[in-house]
Amino acid sequence: MKAIVCDRTVRVDLAYPDPRPQPGECLVRVHLAGICATDLEIIKGYMGFRGVLGHEMVGTVVQGSPDWRGKRVAAEINCVCTRCEMCLAGLANHCRKRTVLGIAGRDGCFAEIFAVPERNLHLIPPSITDEEAVFVEPLAAACQVRAQCPLDARTRAVVVGTGKLGVLIAQVLHGTGCRLTAVGRNRGKLLVCEKLGIQTAHVADFVPRADADVVVECTGAPEGIELAMRIVRPRGTIVLKSTYAATASPNLAPVVINEVTVLGSRCGPFCEAIIALQRKDVEVRTLISRVFPLEQFECALDAAKNPENLKVLLKIG
Amino acid sequence: MKAIVCDRTVRVDLAYPDPRPQPGECLVRVHLAGICATDLEIIKGYMGFRGVLGHEMVGTVVQGSPDWRGKRVAAEINCVCTRCEMCLAGLANHCRKRTVLGIAGRDGCFAEIFAVPERNLHLIPPSITDEEAVFVEPLAAACQVRAQCPLDARTRAVVVGTGKLGVLIAQVLHGTGCRLTAVGRNRGKLLVCEKLGIQTAHVADFVPRADADVVVECTGAPEGIELAMRIVRPRGTIVLKSTYAATASPNLAPVVINEVTVLGSRCGPFCEAIIALQRKDVEVRTLISRVFPLEQFECALDAAKNPENLKVLLKIG
Repeated sequence: MKAIVCDRTVRVDLAYPDPRPQPGECLVRVHLAGICATDLEIIKGYMGFRGVLGHEMVGTVVQGSPDWRGKRVAAEINCVCTRCEMCLAGLANHCRKRTVLGIAGRDGCFAEIFAVPERNLHLIPPSITDEEAVFVEPLAAACQVRAQCPLDARTRAVVVGTGKLGVLIAQVLHGTGCRLTAVGRNRGKLLVCEKLGIQTAHVADFVPRADADVVVECTGAPEGIELAMRIVRPRGTIVLKSTYAATASPNLAPVVINEVTVLGSRCGPFCEAIIALQRKDVEVRTLISRVFPLEQFECALDAAKNPENLKVLLKIG
Repeated sequence: MKAIVCDRTVRVDLAYPDPRPQPGECLVRVHLAGICATDLEIIKGYMGFRGVLGHEMVGTVVQGSPDWRGKRVAAEINCVCTRCEMCLAGLANHCRKRTVLGIAGRDGCFAEIFAVPERNLHLIPPSITDEEAVFVEPLAAACQVRAQCPLDARTRAVVVGTGKLGVLIAQVLHGTGCRLTAVGRNRGKLLVCEKLGIQTAHVADFVPRADADVVVECTGAPEGIELAMRIVRPRGTIVLKSTYAATASPNLAPVVINEVTVLGSRCGPFCEAIIALQRKDVEVRTLISRVFPLEQFECALDAAKNPENLKVLLKIG
């Protein structure tokens, strides 16, 4: 089958071996997949991953139990043992023996077909299109911020970074009714936020006043984290939202002096993302910048690295 | 009067001008003062402080309102405006206009007499000796950890660093009944912990297993923070406890991947510290390594920098 394979370099492999599902796993034929900033970091060597890339997808189950066969699905990315102390403590996303789709120890979804445990599947209702459903994984990660920090109309919140994930998070936070500002560098992306009703500020014009209750850092750059520390109020909360991002090494003195809470935040609740899409609480189609066939992955990669673009998709099946 | 003055260099000044109290302030004659790791950092240039050093003390009020005159006291270090939005929000320790005793914008207590707002005073009951009372400020900072993280008999807690503050924090945590290990480098200090009934491990023998619920970082060194990240479990909490400490710039990736909560922690509740000393919940006298007269500050500084020592005190009045 065709697949995008990462192995020191990244390449289109037209004859990659078909996946063989383990017990409890099914096979999913991929319709659409999304390129995420984490994919770009993995290509650069992050996580030392070898195998098929990709973890954002919508597809159809083509082999598995009768309950799932033929169903349109999105799949959670953490494949867990269900038996270690993390799984038993309700923290399965932190399973000690987990593999992660296209990120750690398991082939991902930039392929015609991939294998995934059936327990990872979420049904996509007919009212959600493929172009929307491919956002379920990153939107779930965005919803996690709301789960970690209570936000209401009194909360002053700032999203730093208006990339793909930043715009999703800004939308989720905007939906809580909080007093939100999205701060970014790219005027086109700020305009996308403004069209969605979100107040924005260009980073060059934005004066940090150490008065925000919650700051969500989505740039991953050291200067983004340092800006977040100047925006957050004493005893406020900074949410760090990009895994790769955090390879930045900021000076933590302001965290101690201002007694800030820093929350690491990774994956999120798929059900909430699906409900948000179903209710049209979040608009994702305007975030699609380009769509490429799998074979044109090289062009897709250039598009994904172009800072003017938001989401770049791969049309597979 | 005699005072230890920091002004690019640090020196004993035998003729420093007497303090002039502002409205609402009193004068305190210092009995004993403690040298803190923050003082050593300030001498190196941290905070750009100029003036009389020192913020840990016990003394007697010699000028002020009749209620306080003649009373033995410890003093909170943050001198606040009571009117800014932080003060009004109950976060006075983060007052926007604060000065901090011997740390920022205000002369400290390494002097015969110093001025401090009366509202900062706490009465020291007769059952607490001067040698104990001089620990109220750092012990309050230790008690803050317990205030920020709920701990009980099920909690696995690790204190990284068994310096002055680490040993105080280990004692406070030990008092909660949690499953505590204090990890340190200096065998003498580990022995102090063991004599207090605290389980210890030498850092060379300690294997981090990503299974602690709460890790309190008291070394301030980058490797201490990085060790804390390997000790804490996914979704666990790291408390960063030294201001100067945090000038370290650790890689934050594990915080995001493991969804760790990082809590900056600075000052703490004086009343709790006083109660802990009164009840003999915490033993502080064994932590006193050396006592020097103010005039021998240079020797006191050497002693404070000697990694074998715990607390070094200045005997002033």
